[in-house]
Amino acid sequence: MPRMALSGVMAPVVTPFDRDLQPDPARFLQHCRALLEEGCSALAIFGTTSEANSLSVEERERLLDHLLDNGIPPERLLPGTGCCSLSDTIRLTKKAARCAGVLMLPPFYYKGVSEEGLFRSYARVIEKLPDARVLLYHIPQVAQVGIPVSLIVRLKSAFPRSIRGIKDSGGDFENTKAVLRAMPKDFDVFVGSEKFLTANLREGGAGCITATANVNARAIVQAFHERSDEAQKRIDAVRSAYVKLPMIPGLKETLARRTGNADWRIVRPPLVELTDEQRRLIPA
Amino acid sequence: MPRMALSGVMAPVVTPFDRDLQPDPARFLQHCRALLEEGCSALAIFGTTSEANSLSVEERERLLDHLLDNGIPPERLLPGTGCCSLSDTIRLTKKAARCAGVLMLPPFYYKGVSEEGLFRSYARVIEKLPDARVLLYHIPQVAQVGIPVSLIVRLKSAFPRSIRGIKDSGGDFENTKAVLRAMPKDFDVFVGSEKFLTANLREGGAGCITATANVNARAIVQAFHERSDEAQKRIDAVRSAYVKLPMIPGLKETLARRTGNADWRIVRPPLVELTDEQRRLIPA
Repeated sequence: MPRMALSGVMAPVVTPFDRDLQPDPARFLQHCRALLEEGCSALAIFGTTSEANSLSVEERERLLDHLLDNGIPPERLLPGTGCCSLSDTIRLTKKAARCAGVLMLPPFYYKGVSEEGLFRSYARVIEKLPDARVLLYHIPQVAQVGIPVSLIVRLKSAFPRSIRGIKDSGGDFENTKAVLRAMPKDFDVFVGSEKFLTANLREGGAGCITATANVNARAIVQAFHERSDEAQKRIDAVRSAYVKLPMIPGLKETLARRTGNADWRIVRPPLVELTDEQRRLIPA
Repeated sequence: MPRMALSGVMAPVVTPFDRDLQPDPARFLQHCRALLEEGCSALAIFGTTSEANSLSVEERERLLDHLLDNGIPPERLLPGTGCCSLSDTIRLTKKAARCAGVLMLPPFYYKGVSEEGLFRSYARVIEKLPDARVLLYHIPQVAQVGIPVSLIVRLKSAFPRSIRGIKDSGGDFENTKAVLRAMPKDFDVFVGSEKFLTANLREGGAGCITATANVNARAIVQAFHERSDEAQKRIDAVRSAYVKLPMIPGLKETLARRTGNADWRIVRPPLVELTDEQRRLIPA
């Protein structure tokens, strides 16, 4: 089996909805094509920024099919497949078999679960689907269930071919460094914010998978290639506007303005669109 | 539309799995029948104790069908239908249309969401299914997304026919009392632990929906009818053994012993079965 060899800047693609709150496959395809043209190395569809957990399994499957049926190369897709239910996680991971890999949340309903329980969750999926290429997804501030370094080490040791890397969205770069130190070179470490992009690359990391790539991909891709403090400062400046706002409706507001399609503002509950006051904080 | 008129003691029914981690419909039916014979007024299938969020939507549908096809009266079922995804919640709530009602978690992936966002989540389901009879499910220590009193008041005011009550599993009886004070008499308040059963009944509440009803239903039902401090003490004594342990595997351990079927010990990851040491703490 070849190396997944993912690196660079990936977008966790926002999901467009219509006025009946249904996913809009055509607009999704259009946005995915644009992000690849802007230099994203791959598309992390169905992440947190994608409102993926607000979608049913079937809705994710139909959106993935629409991309593949319309020429998005599977090797440039990294769908999120980690659900509360193992049966859903296995089904979605199987569906994504042709993709570059999958980004897998731990099961996140029960809290305070044991490391053994989390190990068994991932092990079960990989035992059912030994060819799966898994990027672990650590986002404890949202999932409230994190992936400690000791679990990463144990999983990589048990399933070296399947466990390919991590997206560390915890926002604590000390944790990212601890992962980089603990893991072999073929384990790809992505940070979940471009704020840590240059630092991560200097420490041996693979890149970033960041929400703001939905609106600022070219500059983030340039910073990936430059690895300079100056390029980093430029992308930090753009990010700073979005972190003052609820991120997902903020990104969608920008897409609505750029495309002239007001439906981009639509989010599924429990999220809500920006207030007028918040909208004024979005960069022109 | 008639009053749901639910009261008494309900069991959030544990879900049996086989050695391949698949739900076992026959054993589920058997356990449901036993709980009704022991005096449970209804069965809150697919709750937290049921590992419901570890099941796919299809798995829940098949289990519900198996109960209905085998004579469990729909008016004695209160399935849990609240998922992260509105589309799943709507699908499951529609599937449960013949049941006494549904117990509905708020969408629980995103944290720190607004009251407006939670209102829209429930409103969306009820607008699609105006005949739904909804018990709100407040369990903030697990879901990490609670249902504040102000939201309950707003929902009941907007949808008086559909919003029928609440299961308050927060473990803070002051909150339960605040709900009872704020809401009209036709709003059924269940506590999520029999620890508060007598207190809740004395304050005008409807009963309890409690995990330990899976193993101690007769005594809890008796305490419901007696409303005495003595009966309350007896059920507290049984509960005290289980709260020292991970509750779900603890209940399953007891069912394994009572039925002689070791498969009752099986839980889906991320849960794990009891250790030998923990098993020794289970009452004989």
